[in-house]
Amino acid sequence: MAACIFCRIIKGEIPALKLFESEKTLAFLDIGPLSKGHALVIPKFHGAKLHDIPDDQLSEILPTIKKLVAATGASDYNVLQNNGTIAHQQVHHIPKPNETEGLGISWPSQSGDMEQLKQLCEDIKSKM
Amino acid sequence: MAACIFCRIIKGEIPALKLFESEKTLAFLDIGPLSKGHALVIPKFHGAKLHDIPDDQLSEILPTIKKLVAATGASDYNVLQNNGTIAHQQVHHIPKPNETEGLGISWPSQSGDMEQLKQLCEDIKSKM
Repeated sequence: MAACIFCRIIKGEIPALKLFESEKTLAFLDIGPLSKGHALVIPKFHGAKLHDIPDDQLSEILPTIKKLVAATGASDYNVLQNNGTIAHQQVHHIPKPNETEGLGISWPSQSGDMEQLKQLCEDIKSKM
Repeated sequence: MAACIFCRIIKGEIPALKLFESEKTLAFLDIGPLSKGHALVIPKFHGAKLHDIPDDQLSEILPTIKKLVAATGASDYNVLQNNGTIAHQQVHHIPKPNETEGLGISWPSQSGDMEQLKQLCEDIKSKM
């Protein structure tokens, strides 16, 4: 896609601090990091959201994150993948060195009505 | 692992609202959901953190998330995997229906000093 920033990074039209590259996958440093070693891992296949990427194009994503974990030496870290506000798939590897640095999460959990959840479970299961 | 809650769910010793199960992978509803359809996807291989799980035991994680996206009908969603405060690997599929429901994120990004980032890039790359 001509206008996609990640496709342009893949093509080398936009510079990036590349960490790892293979036929299917590219990893590079985030230049506005949440913590030291914050990196993006993307499939080279263009797609708007995770479910737009074929399974075989996703096969190296988690193994690449594991390589990053080993290389950055992070013991605690978050892996985050957002869908809905981005133009291309990206997976963040974000070391969590302490309470203030890294990814902050708010977790506004709802009361789990077990009957409703059971119905939902059957509904989703029937569609999988 | 006898004491691991996820291993006990896999064995059926603790009930769960199971959505999908295969040889390597189990998906079930979170009973304290952030949004409708919030599910956990876990490898059956026991490990403390992502990098403790062999690559071949991770191969179905992202494809299973894609199945969940299709089954829940979520258009916007977050995929989150935390390492450091949990006892077993889990991957959250969390639909994001609106601003208030679902996952909240704080993103305290740091100024990206390009020279420092370039050095870090070389350092990490050399270890991958």
